[in-house]
Amino acid sequence: MPQYSSMDKNTLLEEYRKLSDTYAEYKAQGLSLNMARGKPGAQQLDLSNDMLNVLTSETSFETIDCPDCRNYGGLAGIEEARRLFAELMGVEEKNVFVGGNSSLNMMFDTIACMMERGCSGEKPWNQQGHIKFLCPAPGYDRHFGVTQYFGIEMIPVPMTENGPDMDQVEKLVANDASVKGIWCTPKYSNPQGITYSDETVKRFAALNPAAKDFRIMWDNAYIIHDINGTPDHLLNIFDEVRKTGKEDMVFEFCSTSKITFPGSGVAALAASEANIKNLSERYQFQTIGHDKLNMLRHVLYFKNLDGLMAHMQKHRAVLEPRFNMVTDTLDKELSGYGIAKWTKPNGGYFVSVDVMDGCAKKVVQLCKEAGVILTGAGATYPYGSDPKDSNIRVAPTYPPLEELEKAMAVFCICVKLAALEKIINE
Amino acid sequence: MPQYSSMDKNTLLEEYRKLSDTYAEYKAQGLSLNMARGKPGAQQLDLSNDMLNVLTSETSFETIDCPDCRNYGGLAGIEEARRLFAELMGVEEKNVFVGGNSSLNMMFDTIACMMERGCSGEKPWNQQGHIKFLCPAPGYDRHFGVTQYFGIEMIPVPMTENGPDMDQVEKLVANDASVKGIWCTPKYSNPQGITYSDETVKRFAALNPAAKDFRIMWDNAYIIHDINGTPDHLLNIFDEVRKTGKEDMVFEFCSTSKITFPGSGVAALAASEANIKNLSERYQFQTIGHDKLNMLRHVLYFKNLDGLMAHMQKHRAVLEPRFNMVTDTLDKELSGYGIAKWTKPNGGYFVSVDVMDGCAKKVVQLCKEAGVILTGAGATYPYGSDPKDSNIRVAPTYPPLEELEKAMAVFCICVKLAALEKIINE
Repeated sequence: MPQYSSMDKNTLLEEYRKLSDTYAEYKAQGLSLNMARGKPGAQQLDLSNDMLNVLTSETSFETIDCPDCRNYGGLAGIEEARRLFAELMGVEEKNVFVGGNSSLNMMFDTIACMMERGCSGEKPWNQQGHIKFLCPAPGYDRHFGVTQYFGIEMIPVPMTENGPDMDQVEKLVANDASVKGIWCTPKYSNPQGITYSDETVKRFAALNPAAKDFRIMWDNAYIIHDINGTPDHLLNIFDEVRKTGKEDMVFEFCSTSKITFPGSGVAALAASEANIKNLSERYQFQTIGHDKLNMLRHVLYFKNLDGLMAHMQKHRAVLEPRFNMVTDTLDKELSGYGIAKWTKPNGGYFVSVDVMDGCAKKVVQLCKEAGVILTGAGATYPYGSDPKDSNIRVAPTYPPLEELEKAMAVFCICVKLAALEKIINE
Repeated sequence: MPQYSSMDKNTLLEEYRKLSDTYAEYKAQGLSLNMARGKPGAQQLDLSNDMLNVLTSETSFETIDCPDCRNYGGLAGIEEARRLFAELMGVEEKNVFVGGNSSLNMMFDTIACMMERGCSGEKPWNQQGHIKFLCPAPGYDRHFGVTQYFGIEMIPVPMTENGPDMDQVEKLVANDASVKGIWCTPKYSNPQGITYSDETVKRFAALNPAAKDFRIMWDNAYIIHDINGTPDHLLNIFDEVRKTGKEDMVFEFCSTSKITFPGSGVAALAASEANIKNLSERYQFQTIGHDKLNMLRHVLYFKNLDGLMAHMQKHRAVLEPRFNMVTDTLDKELSGYGIAKWTKPNGGYFVSVDVMDGCAKKVVQLCKEAGVILTGAGATYPYGSDPKDSNIRVAPTYPPLEELEKAMAVFCICVKLAALEKIINE
């Protein structure tokens, strides 16, 4: 397959005409397809329907540390739920705080707590003037949204195949006490599906930030979300910070949103006892406690980590063919032209495609005009601004399979059209 | 019955010795009774158990505005839930935002939003220097907790039998732009069970605050929580602010915490479109959405306001005898001595007892030593400080009935002992 860049202009124009015709045909179909968000599909949601039958009027609502789960109380969650999440994250129960239905909400609350109360004996962040957060990019748009909401400046850090560029991270945190934290999706990162290497995790655990109140926001959203038979392995960050004595530096988050129900899962965080205490001192004013019946529902349904892992195999059975279809289509349609690169993740919810520099917005626009909605170009970068305008996040989980196939066909045509326009006009 | 204050010293000493003996007998029983918090009892929780059977794997999860309640999305809640809460609060659906399991959390988030973003085009509260909130007292300790957490100065306003002293409220808000809000529990107030009179509600709706960004936190926690056949009627505050053109001044809150399950109910707020928009601009960063399956569970179980009202009659059947027992005991044991006054509410969760000035802490202490836990004396006042040391909140809902009877017997003895000690030593 010849690279577009080495073709002569006439061949390029001919190719462009051909593709434009096909594009026009798709456009005429009046499609309405969506690959924008990392939402589980209906088939995945059905996997957990039986959990809804677990609690009945016959259930005992007494748990280890709660006389009646239906009533008020239990700020950090019922012990059985703390135990399940402790097993999942590889930490002790005392280091787990179980929340409501949203880990994003827990991250938001955690940042809010640092803003209002501070941590490690330092002044509240909102009394320290201009502060900054490191944002490995491409990354998760909602992380960036939280940071921006609180008026924290975002410093992009490039991602490598081993995680964030740690040379840059080390330098930035060591030299600037106004750098207060970093967002990480350490396993099957959003959107690239990269799992941080052992060395990266160890370097995180050994960071020497100028700010005593520097915090790593370790969003382990895809902690057991493998999609094939060769899953990645992520070092346990808490094992590592125990060695370096920096337990207070890390907040880890996870949830069952993409295990059971996205709107009705259970979220949890793991942190040092000092951090849990600090957060609890805010949470005690905020709520009397989160939904313990939903915790009980999850605990009775899964029992333990083995139960969770077995359930994830059912998700894999749904997701593996979808991801294969997406990457196979990319291989088949885009390989060799020198106009795009993409990831082949072993888990998570996304395939990340880097199109030619300056073409991402155009591709998203062309797709949109043909009825295929993608995540907005730039959304994976702080302030929605991708400096190269090249990254596009593809989310293969939500649409029905036949729609996904059609959407990917349109997508590949649009990637080619945008590249051809660029090359022809240069 | 002679008043203690008119008895001679010997009679008082004799009475004191007799009561001390009875107190000692109770103490010897090693009781462990709790009348501290407004928690529903097990019998009340059982009333809603069937709601747990409503959702099954056979349920349709498609609702009016949500293709699948199990999935992400729907920031303001599913339409059916907004409609139910709109009916409950007597407002339009567009003015309702449905949240998670805790109205306290929604109040906390609302205050946080004003702190961080401000409202009515004014600067965020946390950039306006020292600000204040009016706190009708006695009141709800968790309201005071939220205010204190955010560093807002609390100004107590006395309660009258018609609600807060509106002369004071009007004067305080008119003259001081740093007064940013007021906490209200307008129906069956915590702890006195007072329902604001029509005139009080109208005066609230007609307030002329110096601060453009002044907000009334209208916590309608006991909106349909009648406990006898002569329920109070509260004017609809939104009907009144519509007349005065001050819709932006009010946030109303309610929840099903004391209708279904305290830990697993659904909370909601009502507000003007401008206020909903302002809050949503924060919530969109905070979460992708609250638990829609729990909303659906409630909606399918209750269907409409009639369903809710019918359910509340079952609560009344449990609660009426308890409240009667408490007030009957107070009448029988404490009437005529001139040492205490108490309320006889038509709804809500508390009986408020005013003992002799300077005696509340002592009564709570004496009860504690005899194994009866009450809400801490002072908790019903800002900063936990009751200037007269006289108010005690009695919560009759949680303990089993026979325990409640015993606890009330102990309580009445302690009220008498504390009064006698005071009078004898004066």
